[in-house]
Amino acid sequence: MTIHVINPNSSVHVTEGIDAAIAPMRTLSPVPIACHTLAEGPPGIETQAHVEGVVAPLLARAAELEDGASAFVIACFSDPGLAAMRERSARPVLGIAESAVLHAMTLGQRFGILSIKRASVARHVRYLGAMGVLDRLAADLPIDMGVAELADAGRTLDRLAEVGATLRDVHGADVLITGCAGMAQYRPALEEALGLPVVDPCQAAVAAAIGRVALAPCE
Amino acid sequence: MTIHVINPNSSVHVTEGIDAAIAPMRTLSPVPIACHTLAEGPPGIETQAHVEGVVAPLLARAAELEDGASAFVIACFSDPGLAAMRERSARPVLGIAESAVLHAMTLGQRFGILSIKRASVARHVRYLGAMGVLDRLAADLPIDMGVAELADAGRTLDRLAEVGATLRDVHGADVLITGCAGMAQYRPALEEALGLPVVDPCQAAVAAAIGRVALAPCE
Amino acid sequence: MTIHVINPNSSVHVTEGIDAAIAPMRTLSPVPIACHTLAEGPPGIETQAHVEGVVAPLLARAAELEDGASAFVIACFSDPGLAAMRERSARPVLGIAESAVLHAMTLGQRFGILSIKRASVARHVRYLGAMGVLDRLAADLPIDMGVAELADAGRTLDRLAEVGATLRDVHGADVLITGCAGMAQYRPALEEALGLPVVDPCQAAVAAAIGRVALAPCE
Amino acid sequence: MTIHVINPNSSVHVTEGIDAAIAPMRTLSPVPIACHTLAEGPPGIETQAHVEGVVAPLLARAAELEDGASAFVIACFSDPGLAAMRERSARPVLGIAESAVLHAMTLGQRFGILSIKRASVARHVRYLGAMGVLDRLAADLPIDMGVAELADAGRTLDRLAEVGATLRDVHGADVLITGCAGMAQYRPALEEALGLPVVDPCQAAVAAAIGRVALAPCE
Amino acid sequence: MTIHVINPNSSVHVTEGIDAAIAPMRTLSPVPIACHTLAEGPPGIETQAHVEGVVAPLLARAAELEDGASAFVIACFSDPGLAAMRERSARPVLGIAESAVLHAMTLGQRFGILSIKRASVARHVRYLGAMGVLDRLAADLPIDMGVAELADAGRTLDRLAEVGATLRDVHGADVLITGCAGMAQYRPALEEALGLPVVDPCQAAVAAAIGRVALAPCE
Amino acid sequence: MTIHVINPNSSVHVTEGIDAAIAPMRTLSPVPIACHTLAEGPPGIETQAHVEGVVAPLLARAAELEDGASAFVIACFSDPGLAAMRERSARPVLGIAESAVLHAMTLGQRFGILSIKRASVARHVRYLGAMGVLDRLAADLPIDMGVAELADAGRTLDRLAEVGATLRDVHGADVLITGCAGMAQYRPALEEALGLPVVDPCQAAVAAAIGRVALAPCE
Repeated sequence: MTIHVINPNSSVHVTEGIDAAIAPMRTLSPVPIACHTLAEGPPGIETQAHVEGVVAPLLARAAELEDGASAFVIACFSDPGLAAMRERSARPVLGIAESAVLHAMTLGQRFGILSIKRASVARHVRYLGAMGVLDRLAADLPIDMGVAELADAGRTLDRLAEVGATLRDVHGADVLITGCAGMAQYRPALEEALGLPVVDPCQAAVAAAIGRVALAPCE
Repeated sequence: MTIHVINPNSSVHVTEGIDAAIAPMRTLSPVPIACHTLAEGPPGIETQAHVEGVVAPLLARAAELEDGASAFVIACFSDPGLAAMRERSARPVLGIAESAVLHAMTLGQRFGILSIKRASVARHVRYLGAMGVLDRLAADLPIDMGVAELADAGRTLDRLAEVGATLRDVHGADVLITGCAGMAQYRPALEEALGLPVVDPCQAAVAAAIGRVALAPCE
Repeated sequence: MTIHVINPNSSVHVTEGIDAAIAPMRTLSPVPIACHTLAEGPPGIETQAHVEGVVAPLLARAAELEDGASAFVIACFSDPGLAAMRERSARPVLGIAESAVLHAMTLGQRFGILSIKRASVARHVRYLGAMGVLDRLAADLPIDMGVAELADAGRTLDRLAEVGATLRDVHGADVLITGCAGMAQYRPALEEALGLPVVDPCQAAVAAAIGRVALAPCE
Repeated sequence: MTIHVINPNSSVHVTEGIDAAIAPMRTLSPVPIACHTLAEGPPGIETQAHVEGVVAPLLARAAELEDGASAFVIACFSDPGLAAMRERSARPVLGIAESAVLHAMTLGQRFGILSIKRASVARHVRYLGAMGVLDRLAADLPIDMGVAELADAGRTLDRLAEVGATLRDVHGADVLITGCAGMAQYRPALEEALGLPVVDPCQAAVAAAIGRVALAPCE
Repeated sequence: MTIHVINPNSSVHVTEGIDAAIAPMRTLSPVPIACHTLAEGPPGIETQAHVEGVVAPLLARAAELEDGASAFVIACFSDPGLAAMRERSARPVLGIAESAVLHAMTLGQRFGILSIKRASVARHVRYLGAMGVLDRLAADLPIDMGVAELADAGRTLDRLAEVGATLRDVHGADVLITGCAGMAQYRPALEEALGLPVVDPCQAAVAAAIGRVALAPCE
Repeated sequence: MTIHVINPNSSVHVTEGIDAAIAPMRTLSPVPIACHTLAEGPPGIETQAHVEGVVAPLLARAAELEDGASAFVIACFSDPGLAAMRERSARPVLGIAESAVLHAMTLGQRFGILSIKRASVARHVRYLGAMGVLDRLAADLPIDMGVAELADAGRTLDRLAEVGATLRDVHGADVLITGCAGMAQYRPALEEALGLPVVDPCQAAVAAAIGRVALAPCE
């Protein structure tokens, strides 16, 4: 039995980043953790059409993995297919956005979200409204960087720290969430720079999945 | 130019019901109103997987119609693909659930929703949370009838009236929404029985679409 | 039968602005649209006493127009007398603030309001709370200009664009509403400058009224 | 200097009831408390048009009383003219609905409102939304009695207790508010019958006014 | 290193029930799980004074355990001392109420809480408000049973099922939480009887603690 | 009979400041007002452990004073022990934070809170969530000054005015609350500087207590 983490975009590079982020958890997990790339997904999930377009192949892939699965993690911050997966699968299913938010709610009173693109913010806020947790949201702000800029790690960290400081000082955030799979590498430096806890959503979701797996014998 | 109403399930019978519901509006619409059946959809949209599964064919169909479209109406109470359509299309796009809720907000202070299936309620509440209008929701209650029972119009009306009375008396609804495309036929009798305005979501959405078409010359 | 738009202040100049704003919609409206000035109103509605003081003459005027009315639009952003008109009239009654908000809710996730006076903001927020839509409000900010300054169109546009940019960048608005009848002339330039949709409340309300008129044969 | 309690309807009988309700507070008030009837008001305030129609005469009456006023209380559960009075008067102005709600928020976690007429409930809920306190509302239920029935005190008490029990047991109210000026006589028996604190809005508002008068030397 | 579960009341019987509830999780936990009784606590935590009175001894006990602790779980549904513990301890600290709610938010859209005593409900609702999750609460209803009755397991289950059915059918709950440490034994039968998932708060908190322990190497 | 104001920290200097703040109210109070220092409290209440740690001695002290008490005021902006005191005492019990918020809700639509320490903000927001009034909160911002700086009254006022201006201009506050016992001396200058009403929480709570005392003969 395995915790299956599915990256619903087709970027193996992103999947490798997710794998690196959660790798330290493997020694303490009661079951193996496998990270998968959804070949049918787009290179990146950037629009609502992408979000909904990956649901069918995601459900298909999960169905194949179901028998050997302890739990599923959907590793995209839009939580594509989360509700559908929960209807279909008999296993616990976690989304990284939902998990990050629920985790952040135990670390601070108002969480700030660091999004990559401005266009994602409305989608996130819709989702947080559906989750009923807007009273806990400080703000969701984009770092608004292009692909080329994101390749420069130093510059990315600077920008994350700058927007994070705005979330803390203007909007009152006392905990931050990086609103994207694949930014775990910046977490320690960001916590250091801002003096606030920072949640990586993939790590939060895998932690939740491990908790669910441990809970299974009680069912 | 035409207002295109797309029923995202494959039931021609449902599309005919929608067409009948909005037919009286044709004489006052500045453009024709055409109702379409999405052949690629399931016979009925009952699960979250259905909701997301119809988005891709819906987007494809809408893209074909785009050039001749004044506006689009998505005629399923889960508003499948609404956000995606709005990203993709240059025309106004209305969902029947969103339109019904916004319409109801002008007719009363707390709306009640009459759902068919119990399993739809959580999906609706998630959506109303995403819309940020839960303070206006009295309650969403299922009439919980099977297909065979729904074929009996008298019994369906009785059940709608019974659950509607609970929405009014226990939950404080002062306006009701039938949470499904294809129940417009019951609207007059239900209003009569309960003494409350009742919103048919397809009619509300087409009315909104007509308003948007009339607004176009101001853009 | 006619859609009657009533400007509840006594300024014919304002009524002319409203008429110009909605004029392009006339060719697509199923009925004529007439704009009226409430002679008994104050020159401008600036206080809560003004808001409530116009209700009685507004009701009287509407009663005279009732027989020939398809619908009423109350053309002041405080929606004076909206609830009272709905109790009294058998016709659809739309307020421009309510209509603008409901319209904006279909164009973005968080709307910002551009108010003229700082003193209006609390009144607007009270009203948005009564509407139950505060989760959709980014912020309501005043441009805080006096009558003399407002006469300078270039300066007014600059100030609207400046405050609009704050609503977008600091408060996360992805759609804006001009919180006043009579600013429709700035809408295209403001949309261009900010890259966001801008809702003129009079246009939104007349669009809604046209939709309601088209819906009437279904009743 | 005097606390002026203004009943905005023209019923002297109602004013006498208010006077009786607050009479025991006179010995502990630092200033006299005078109850007034607004002759220009309707016999009862039952519609939104009534609510707004009394604002102008209320403002006029208050202006006459301003010089000798320590504070004003508007003694109708719709708080007509409260915002307008606060703009106009230099004295503390209290509304009985607002005061009752704020008082109830110190006595329990969820308040229930006992309204007389079903038609008032939507108006109350709009107002509670404007106050931003809907999370504290258990429910607002009408006792739905006509004038003749209300004349029968025993029957009125029975009905208040019956609806109050529903507020407590179905809706989770742990404190009740009688949503009308003039029901103070039922308060002790209702508290006894239900085991919950009951707030009379006129008493709550006069208590708040006395507090404000005592605060004045700090200004 | 150990996960320390502290029952803040002095009842060893309750601690044994907690231990039995979480025992099946031990084989999958990466560290041992120890359950402790707070000798200084009252026999049961029934009042707000109890809740706050146990904080000091709880902090003292936790300080003694800190060096050997992987995480702490506070095993009382009022989460006494949760915020204080988080300020003081360098370990993850979970409360069973918070954990149950966050867990339930992944299993359904609206959770219902089955409380023992009516007097606890207001305390719970205050806490859910502080958590900002009232939009996800269906209702919190007491089973209102005395100690003698609770000793009768069959009767307790019947009452839980009865009140749970009200939470489901009247209030729209699609997941339930038993609002007390020590009712895990009823969970399977209650799920069976009602067709809804039921969350035991101690199990949910220990699952969350296991997830946090697994996350530690990422810090 | 006396209104007992209890400062739950052990600083006599703070108690003297509270006494000075409320002294002008004594001539208009129907009963004497006595201010007490809780010797068992910490020098200042700065952590959640402090908040909960003072509850037991506070309850003990209040029990001694009960027989001669007309009402109690807990004079710390975290309202320590408020719910517990209300369970235990037969007298009205007011907290200064709750009283300040309820008072501010009658003076403006959105209140801003001026906190001393950044670390207090999350505690305040949790409490405002429990009160269900977050829709009325503009923001809670710290002035973030150390003890030495606070000794400089001119500098403290400058900083209060600076942060107050941010609350007004960025966050839309139209009334401010000083989030600490002992800042009443700055109130007049701050109101003057900002053009907004400023609420001192001790004054607000004593005003509410006086109102309650006046209400007692109605019970």
